[in-house]
Amino acid sequence: MRDPDALPDALPDARPAAEIEIPELPADALPEIDAARLWDRHMAMAKIGARPVGGVHRLALDADDIAAHRQLADWALARGFSVALDPVGNMFLRREGADPGAAPVVSGSHCDSQPTGGRFDGIYGVLCALEAMETAEDRGIVTRRPLECVIWVNEEGSRFRPGCMGSEVYAGLLGLNAALAKVGDDGGILGDGVADLRAALPEAGARALGTPFHALLEAHIEQGPLLEAGGELIGVVDRVQGHRRLAISVIGREDHSGGAPLSLRKDAFVDAIEVCRGLADLCRDPSDVLRFTFGRFTVTPNAVSVVPGRVDMILDLRHPSQDELTRLGDLVAAEAAGFAKLCDVGVEDTSWHAPVRFSASVQAAYGRAADRRGYARRGIDSGGGHDARWFPGRWPTGMLFIPCEAGISHNPAENVDPAHAAAGAQVMADVMLELAMT
Amino acid sequence: MRDPDALPDALPDARPAAEIEIPELPADALPEIDAARLWDRHMAMAKIGARPVGGVHRLALDADDIAAHRQLADWALARGFSVALDPVGNMFLRREGADPGAAPVVSGSHCDSQPTGGRFDGIYGVLCALEAMETAEDRGIVTRRPLECVIWVNEEGSRFRPGCMGSEVYAGLLGLNAALAKVGDDGGILGDGVADLRAALPEAGARALGTPFHALLEAHIEQGPLLEAGGELIGVVDRVQGHRRLAISVIGREDHSGGAPLSLRKDAFVDAIEVCRGLADLCRDPSDVLRFTFGRFTVTPNAVSVVPGRVDMILDLRHPSQDELTRLGDLVAAEAAGFAKLCDVGVEDTSWHAPVRFSASVQAAYGRAADRRGYARRGIDSGGGHDARWFPGRWPTGMLFIPCEAGISHNPAENVDPAHAAAGAQVMADVMLELAMT
Repeated sequence: MRDPDALPDALPDARPAAEIEIPELPADALPEIDAARLWDRHMAMAKIGARPVGGVHRLALDADDIAAHRQLADWALARGFSVALDPVGNMFLRREGADPGAAPVVSGSHCDSQPTGGRFDGIYGVLCALEAMETAEDRGIVTRRPLECVIWVNEEGSRFRPGCMGSEVYAGLLGLNAALAKVGDDGGILGDGVADLRAALPEAGARALGTPFHALLEAHIEQGPLLEAGGELIGVVDRVQGHRRLAISVIGREDHSGGAPLSLRKDAFVDAIEVCRGLADLCRDPSDVLRFTFGRFTVTPNAVSVVPGRVDMILDLRHPSQDELTRLGDLVAAEAAGFAKLCDVGVEDTSWHAPVRFSASVQAAYGRAADRRGYARRGIDSGGGHDARWFPGRWPTGMLFIPCEAGISHNPAENVDPAHAAAGAQVMADVMLELAMT
Repeated sequence: MRDPDALPDALPDARPAAEIEIPELPADALPEIDAARLWDRHMAMAKIGARPVGGVHRLALDADDIAAHRQLADWALARGFSVALDPVGNMFLRREGADPGAAPVVSGSHCDSQPTGGRFDGIYGVLCALEAMETAEDRGIVTRRPLECVIWVNEEGSRFRPGCMGSEVYAGLLGLNAALAKVGDDGGILGDGVADLRAALPEAGARALGTPFHALLEAHIEQGPLLEAGGELIGVVDRVQGHRRLAISVIGREDHSGGAPLSLRKDAFVDAIEVCRGLADLCRDPSDVLRFTFGRFTVTPNAVSVVPGRVDMILDLRHPSQDELTRLGDLVAAEAAGFAKLCDVGVEDTSWHAPVRFSASVQAAYGRAADRRGYARRGIDSGGGHDARWFPGRWPTGMLFIPCEAGISHNPAENVDPAHAAAGAQVMADVMLELAMT
């Protein structure tokens, strides 16, 4: 059991699980998915929690998120698949294999969204996995291992923090009770949301946390521009970059904005700007690998006639190298105060996730499948955190990306080409079948 | 009738009303105020809407603001003074004169506060005026003109915008119905608040808007550091500096903070910082007269994992010269977009108040009174806007300041030396009596 926001001593680069052999199946054993069904389901899901400006608003375990779970379960039950919930609210849709005792091949992602989320983030990976299971069902293919579609609960962390919570609990890295007790921004309790979800799914059986997988796969939109720029349909994800967040506070003094001459102020905003610029210079990376964001920046009291007395901001640093995150983050903590001219500056690490590397054999299987289908592909690193990040140390794990329009995500304008969606789902279906045969 | 936020064509420097002669009274006709009573009343008022961290929270016409009005009316009624309300909720406490038909000598300020307001802003001017009336009452002094203490409604503009609203309506510069229809941040309507105030003051008579004053006086804490720095007890206010606000928006694109490489982002926060720094350079004033504040700065969506798509900020410019406000504000509008590297920038004037100059004869009377009492004094400009600003073109008007600790205001730490409070009240009482005798 580990504090999800523990500092790096607790988070060495994950040591990967033992590799597995993934036999290549002949082309005629690998059926084509139903691209129209896949797309229609995306459009149906986009109606649940749809926003007038576009995109969706489905915060973890709110009414729309539960409705999305219900819709997915209905599609699964209609095909004779079973539905199960684990104690933290992860949902598993299962197509039985010839050997029900064999560890399942599991693929999926999440169906919750950011407050101003798009129509593909998360749900794409869920619908790819379901499509693979339905394609097998359409053709009456008997796999040795069960095929499962997993819907991890609370990936976004928009309502209950931190994100990727359901998968973290399943992986044994966060305690169940700690998760169930989380209080959301709206005052709701995660455990109550899980009870609501269970009530909405009376058909669901029980799944024990940590029940082993043969392999864990996840398809996702890239949320970045590289595939589109390179013209590739498939990104085979090598690593999830590491991720370190620092909370920086700048403390000045509130004054009347008409009464106080500039020479006598201690304006927290003016110094905060200097801190931001200084840190940006410090973290400049000509190779454009480092990702550096001030996403949250809050001025107090934020009133037009008051000189700001305090600014709080979160610096979000992402890099594939743990060493670089250590060096840069430590530099920020050491140097930030020096950029302020008058105010006091505090810096605190709030979360730190080491980079992880995915299974080489799964990556190879994705690559082979893409090549067989004639889809251009490339290796890629993941900028965002994903549920799959918790599992490489336990079971063979791998992600694949498809392009999204202009790289835009966490945005109502998030968009995907239907042909790209189909290509990723096809590769996912091919590899799930290959994994399920042995 | 004028839009309160009208642009400068409608706001030439105010042409002052005709000067009046203010006869100097002999020292034995000018009684000493009761400094202990004055201070005790400040402490009593500070309990109404007191905050645990210090200071007060009395937003215009909320329950605490109405309780403050009620307390002031109780003190007045106990001395036989009358209470009246005008249609917008300005309250007048009146000590009758020998000639009830003569225009009254009016002094006062406001009792509402900023959300994190101090114990002296506004209420000091009210209690000075009441103390002058009680001092006259204590000594049985019969003045020719009535003495009045005015409590202007909604000076701060923290709940209903804009501020200085009650005085603006009284001065005929904002329509009554426009004011009564204002909707506050909490959804409350100003007219409903006025009805609540009237219900809490059944003894109150009616006062017609615009009923003439012989003169309007206002005492206030400086809200700046000059008097303290110079060791003066009294600031005789020459001008209220002009005040121009510009709303600046920086429009970029939301992206995933892990997925989007820096080279491909359109980060509204990064450009907003450049805009702020560029404008700060543009407005640099070695003479330290210009006041330049970004008090409100709002990032959208303000989420740790989303590259900011939009920043909205208010630039607050204050200067005693209308020409300088015109030059600088126009420069801001013309240059702001040039400081952004990638994002679109919009600039809009949101309010503009011309500088005003107070009555020379009232300033002279304050100066004489301070000199007679042996209080060090200086001429000073007002940084903040005050209710008195609307009246110099109608009736002789003048403000006086006392020091506040370290110049801090709009802050729970706002503080005043009791001896300074007494000095200002004494000068106010002396000048009110001088004005009321002819």
